[in-house]
Amino acid sequence: MDPRVGIVGYRGYSGAELVRILERHARVEPVLLEHRQGAAADAEGQAIRNGKGPLCLPCTAEAVRAERIALVFLATPPEVSMDLAPAMLGAGARVVDLSGAFRLRTPENYAAWYKAAHTQPELLAEAAYGLPEFCRESIPAARLVANPGCYPTAANLAIRPLIDAGVVERAAGIVCDAKSGVSGAGRKATLKNSFCEVTENFTAYSVLRHRHVPEVLQVSGLEERELSFTAHLLPVDRGILETIYFRAKGLAGAGELLAVYEKRYANEPFLRLYEPGHMPDLHGVAHTNFCDIGVALDARTGRGVVVSAIDNLVKGAAGQAVQNMNLMLGYPETEGLL
Amino acid sequence: MDPRVGIVGYRGYSGAELVRILERHARVEPVLLEHRQGAAADAEGQAIRNGKGPLCLPCTAEAVRAERIALVFLATPPEVSMDLAPAMLGAGARVVDLSGAFRLRTPENYAAWYKAAHTQPELLAEAAYGLPEFCRESIPAARLVANPGCYPTAANLAIRPLIDAGVVERAAGIVCDAKSGVSGAGRKATLKNSFCEVTENFTAYSVLRHRHVPEVLQVSGLEERELSFTAHLLPVDRGILETIYFRAKGLAGAGELLAVYEKRYANEPFLRLYEPGHMPDLHGVAHTNFCDIGVALDARTGRGVVVSAIDNLVKGAAGQAVQNMNLMLGYPETEGLL
Amino acid sequence: MDPRVGIVGYRGYSGAELVRILERHARVEPVLLEHRQGAAADAEGQAIRNGKGPLCLPCTAEAVRAERIALVFLATPPEVSMDLAPAMLGAGARVVDLSGAFRLRTPENYAAWYKAAHTQPELLAEAAYGLPEFCRESIPAARLVANPGCYPTAANLAIRPLIDAGVVERAAGIVCDAKSGVSGAGRKATLKNSFCEVTENFTAYSVLRHRHVPEVLQVSGLEERELSFTAHLLPVDRGILETIYFRAKGLAGAGELLAVYEKRYANEPFLRLYEPGHMPDLHGVAHTNFCDIGVALDARTGRGVVVSAIDNLVKGAAGQAVQNMNLMLGYPETEGLL
Amino acid sequence: MDPRVGIVGYRGYSGAELVRILERHARVEPVLLEHRQGAAADAEGQAIRNGKGPLCLPCTAEAVRAERIALVFLATPPEVSMDLAPAMLGAGARVVDLSGAFRLRTPENYAAWYKAAHTQPELLAEAAYGLPEFCRESIPAARLVANPGCYPTAANLAIRPLIDAGVVERAAGIVCDAKSGVSGAGRKATLKNSFCEVTENFTAYSVLRHRHVPEVLQVSGLEERELSFTAHLLPVDRGILETIYFRAKGLAGAGELLAVYEKRYANEPFLRLYEPGHMPDLHGVAHTNFCDIGVALDARTGRGVVVSAIDNLVKGAAGQAVQNMNLMLGYPETEGLL
Repeated sequence: MDPRVGIVGYRGYSGAELVRILERHARVEPVLLEHRQGAAADAEGQAIRNGKGPLCLPCTAEAVRAERIALVFLATPPEVSMDLAPAMLGAGARVVDLSGAFRLRTPENYAAWYKAAHTQPELLAEAAYGLPEFCRESIPAARLVANPGCYPTAANLAIRPLIDAGVVERAAGIVCDAKSGVSGAGRKATLKNSFCEVTENFTAYSVLRHRHVPEVLQVSGLEERELSFTAHLLPVDRGILETIYFRAKGLAGAGELLAVYEKRYANEPFLRLYEPGHMPDLHGVAHTNFCDIGVALDARTGRGVVVSAIDNLVKGAAGQAVQNMNLMLGYPETEGLL
Repeated sequence: MDPRVGIVGYRGYSGAELVRILERHARVEPVLLEHRQGAAADAEGQAIRNGKGPLCLPCTAEAVRAERIALVFLATPPEVSMDLAPAMLGAGARVVDLSGAFRLRTPENYAAWYKAAHTQPELLAEAAYGLPEFCRESIPAARLVANPGCYPTAANLAIRPLIDAGVVERAAGIVCDAKSGVSGAGRKATLKNSFCEVTENFTAYSVLRHRHVPEVLQVSGLEERELSFTAHLLPVDRGILETIYFRAKGLAGAGELLAVYEKRYANEPFLRLYEPGHMPDLHGVAHTNFCDIGVALDARTGRGVVVSAIDNLVKGAAGQAVQNMNLMLGYPETEGLL
Repeated sequence: MDPRVGIVGYRGYSGAELVRILERHARVEPVLLEHRQGAAADAEGQAIRNGKGPLCLPCTAEAVRAERIALVFLATPPEVSMDLAPAMLGAGARVVDLSGAFRLRTPENYAAWYKAAHTQPELLAEAAYGLPEFCRESIPAARLVANPGCYPTAANLAIRPLIDAGVVERAAGIVCDAKSGVSGAGRKATLKNSFCEVTENFTAYSVLRHRHVPEVLQVSGLEERELSFTAHLLPVDRGILETIYFRAKGLAGAGELLAVYEKRYANEPFLRLYEPGHMPDLHGVAHTNFCDIGVALDARTGRGVVVSAIDNLVKGAAGQAVQNMNLMLGYPETEGLL
Repeated sequence: MDPRVGIVGYRGYSGAELVRILERHARVEPVLLEHRQGAAADAEGQAIRNGKGPLCLPCTAEAVRAERIALVFLATPPEVSMDLAPAMLGAGARVVDLSGAFRLRTPENYAAWYKAAHTQPELLAEAAYGLPEFCRESIPAARLVANPGCYPTAANLAIRPLIDAGVVERAAGIVCDAKSGVSGAGRKATLKNSFCEVTENFTAYSVLRHRHVPEVLQVSGLEERELSFTAHLLPVDRGILETIYFRAKGLAGAGELLAVYEKRYANEPFLRLYEPGHMPDLHGVAHTNFCDIGVALDARTGRGVVVSAIDNLVKGAAGQAVQNMNLMLGYPETEGLL
C-alpha cells in the first residue's frame, strides 16, 4: 500500500497545487488535513454533486499517528508552521514546510527579516534547506525540510553557478529584478490583490528589503551589500521571471556564459537552458517544475544578463516540495513531476 | 479660427490617442490625414450610424497647403516618416514626428541601431529632440521635432537628474530594467502580440540591444558601457514602468535622493514624486501625461533604486507630442493635457 | 462662483469616477465628504508629494450647510444612503444617490429584493428615478434622484423602445444575458473578486434573481414572468454588455429593427447605434457616457437580438449621476460628459 | 510496442494540446507530422538546448505507412483536412479530424454554412460524429471520426438531455448565449485577436449565424427557428461557458431539472453536475476534459436556465479527440484524460 501524505492548508494556492500534483503521483496517497478549529468539510468540493476528492482528516497528532501519515506538507503561514511542525514530527511524520519558518539559519536572522520571534529554534537548527540542486545530500535523511521561497528559487538557480564559476565582478554588485504573479501572495481577500487593482497594472514592492533576500544571500554566498533585489507584482495568476544583471569577468561571449550553466546543470532534470538569442517566458514554465534560464552578454563591456523563469506554485512551491518528498521517501526525484 | 493640425497614422495606437487628446484641446482643430494609397475612409468609425469624427483628407502637400494645416503629427514607422517629413515641411507645415527617424544625432548612429540608411540626413541635423523637461528652449522655434521614444522618456526623466546631481558611482554602472504594455509595439497583427501568447505571460526582449538605448545615452550622458537596459513585455495594454539601480554617493537617505528630483522638477507640471515608502504604478499614470517617480535607498551600502512610470501612449507618445505642439504654437504647455 | 457639490464614498470605484468627471466639469467645484468616523485624510493621495486634490470635509449637516454644498452624491451602500439622504436634504443640499436605496417604488418591493426593511419610505415615495432618456421631465425639480443600477441602464435603454414600439412577442418572453466587469461589485476586498479567482475565469451569478431585475421590470413594463435575466462576471475592470433575445413581430429586417431605436433616440446625445452587421463592444464605451446599441434579426423566423454596451462606472453610475446633476442644476445635459 | 499516432497541425493551439495530452498517455507514442512544404523542424522547441520532444516526420502517405502510424489527428483547417484525410486513410491510418470538414451530414449543408464546396462527399457520408456521450456506438469501428466543434459540444451536452426528457416548451424557443476564450479562434496573427484589442474588451460575433449552429441542430434535434445562438469573445485564453434559456414544462423545481442530467449522465466519466445554487465556471474545467453543468429554475413561471462549461481546447477539441481515439483503439475511454 502506498504511504499516505498529508496536506495542511490545502485550500491555499500552494496547497491546492500540492493536491493536484499528488493525485497524479503514482506512489503516495494524499490526505487533506484540516487544521482550523470547526472548519466545515470542503464546501467548494461539495458544489459538484458527483465530484470525488481525497480523504479529509483533522490535523491532529492522533489522526496522523492513527492513519499512519508518513509525511506532512505544511502549506501554512510561518507562525502556523512553527506551531504544527513539532506536533507532526512528534506523531512520527516527516515534514516539508512551505512557509518561511525554517529557511534561515538562525533565530536572529529570522527575527530580523520576519519581524517576529522564532518559537522553535531547535527545529530551525535541525531543518534541511530543500533546494535539491544545491542541497541534495542533506534532504533524504532529514526529518524536517524547509521548502525554499519562490523568489529565492529562481534567483539562486541563476546566481549560484555564476558565483561558483567565479565569473562575476562582485565589487560591482548584482541586480536581481524580480517579477511575480499574484498567486505568490497567497489565497486571501485583500484590496491590493483584488482584480480591479491588479489588472492592467504593475508595481514594485518591498524594494531592497523583501524577506526573501536573506535566502538568496544564504544560498548564493553574496553579501547583502552586493545584491540589489526588488520584487514586482505582475498582472498574471502564476509565474516568476527574474532578470539578473552583473559585470562578467573572463567570459568571451554568451556561449561561454551559457556553458557555465550547462556544466553545472548537466544532470539536473528540472533545469532547461535557452540558446543564445532566446529567452524564457512564463508560458514555458507554467504548470511545470522546470526552471528555464537564458543569457545575454556584451563581451566587449562585460555587461551580463541572466533571465530565469519558474512557476511560483510549482518549482517555487508545491512541485519543489514534491521533489523534496521524492528524495525523502527514496523515489525517483522526478516522480509525478514530468 | 483655431489652427488645423493633421494626424498621419491615426489608426495606430499612438495616432488614435493623439486624436482623442486633440479633440479635447481647446485651441486646435484636428484633421485626419490618410497617407495610404486608396485607403477607404475610416471603416471603423462608419460602424456607428450617428457617430461624429474629425475631417479626413488625403495626406498630400496640396491638401496640407490648401487646407492650411499648421502642424502635422507623423505617427508612422521611421521609413514612412523620412518620406513624409520633407513633403509636409515643404507644404508649410511644421512637423512632430513620433517615430525614431529623427531622434539620433547622426546618420551613422541611426544606421547602427535601426539597421537602415537614413535618407534625410539634413533634416536629422535640423530636428529638435522633444523632451521638454530637458530641451525646452530648442522646441518653440523648431520646424521639425523628434518626439522621444517611450522607454527613453521614462528612463531619462529618472536618470538625468541623478547624473546632473553627481550622486551616481558611474563606474559601477546603471541598470534600467524596463517593462512595457503591448501597445508599445504598435497596432498590427503579429503572433507574438496575439492575446493567447501575451495573457498570463511575461518575457524579456532586445536584452542589452534595444534601439531605444542610444536615446537614453544621448540625453543622460551615460556611456554605453555604463548602462544595462533590458525591455520586457507586460500583459497590459498600456503603461511603462522602469526600475533603475545604481550605486549612490553622497546621499544620507531616501529623502536626499528624492530631494534631487524635487529640486530639478519643482516647476515641471508633468512630474510627480512619491513619498519614501511609496512607489508609482501604472494605474496612477494611465491616460495621463504624468511621469511618476519613486525612490528607495539603502544609505549604509549605497544601493539606490528609482522607479519611474508613464503611460507609453501619452507621456511616451501622443501626450508628449501635444506638449511639444503647445510649445511650438505658443500655447500653455499643459493645454489639453490635464 | 461655481456651486460646490459633495461626493460621499469617494474612495469607491463609482465615487472616484465621480471625482474624475467633476474635476473636468466647467461649472461645479467638487468637494470630498468623509462619512466614516475618524477616517484619516486620503492616504492614497498623500503618497504623491506634489499631488493636488479637491477639498475634503466631514460629511455632516453642519459642514454641508456652512460650506454651502448645493448637491451631494451618495456613492455608498443602500443602508448608508438611507441614513445620509435625510441629513443631507435637511441641510439644504439636493441628493443624487447611486445606491439601490431609492430606486424601487414601494418599501415592499425593496424588502423583497434587498432582504432588508426600508427605513425612509417617504423619501422613497418622493425620489425621482434618474434615467434621463425616459424620465427627463421629473428630474430637474427633484430634491432626491435615484441613479439607476448599471445592469438596468443597459437593459432598459435596449428593451423599452422595443416594448413601446410593440415589436416584441411578449408571450415568448425576453432573455437578457448580462455580463459585467468586476468594478461593478465595488471596491472591497473579497476572495471572489481577487485577481487569481477572476483572471482567465468567467461565471454566471444571481441567475434569475439579481436585485436589479425589479428596476428592469419597472422601467420596461415587462412582467417578471416575461424576463429571464442572468448576470455574469467578466474578467475585465469595467464595462457591461448585455445580449437581449426576443421574438420579433412586424419587422421585415434588421434595418427596421434599428429604425425603432433611431426614431426613439434621434435627439439623445448619449445613445449611439451600430450599423447592421456591426456590434458594440466594451472598448467603444469605456470611459464614456455612451450607451451603444447593435441589432440582428432573422426576419424569416422572427428571432431578434439586441446588444447594448455601457461603461458600468460612467453611464452605469458616475456619468449618469452627473447627467442627472446637469438636469437638476440647469446645465446642458452633456456638460463634462463628452 | 505502443502504436504510433500522428498529429498534423501540432503548432496550433488544439494540436499543441493534443501533443501535451498524448505525451502523458500510457498507451500510444505521439509523432509530429509536418504537412507544410519545406517547413523547418520546430524552431520553438529548438530554443531550449536540452529540451526533448516527440519524433517529427513529413506528413506523407509513405511516412505514415513506413512508420506504421495507426491513427492520425488532423488539427488543420477544413480545406486542409479534406485534402489530407483521403491520403491518410489510404495509407492505412484511421483519422480523427478536429476541423469542421466532416461534421455535417450533407455536402449541401456544408456548403451553406462553410461557404465552400465539399470536395470529399463520400468521406462526409462515411464519417462518424465523435460526441461519445451521444454517439458512442458508432465510433469504435469508424475509419474517420469528425471531432465536434467546441461550441456544439457544450451546447449539445446541455440541450439534448432536455429535449430527450421532453421538459422544454419548444414553441418558445431556446436561447444559447455562448462565450469563448480567444484560443478558439486558432493560433494565427489577426488584429482582432491581438492583445490590445481583446484585453478589457468583450463583444458578440456571428450573431444568429455562427457556423457551429448546424451541429447543434443536428445533435439536439432542434429546428433552426427554435434556436437563437450568439457567440461572444471573452478576454481569456481558454474556456467556453454557455448560458441556455428555455421555458420548462413539467418540472417542479431545480432539483427535478438537475435530475434530468443526473439520470442521463449517471455513467458518464466527463460530466459533472453542480448542486442547485452553484454554477460552473471556467477555472473548474480548465485543462480538464470535463463538461460541468449547473441549473436554475423558477418553477412558478417555468423560466429555466442551464449553464455548461468546458475547456474549448480539451473537451472542446484535443481531449475529446483523445477520448474518441481511446474508443477507436479499444482503450479505456478515460485513458490519459483524468
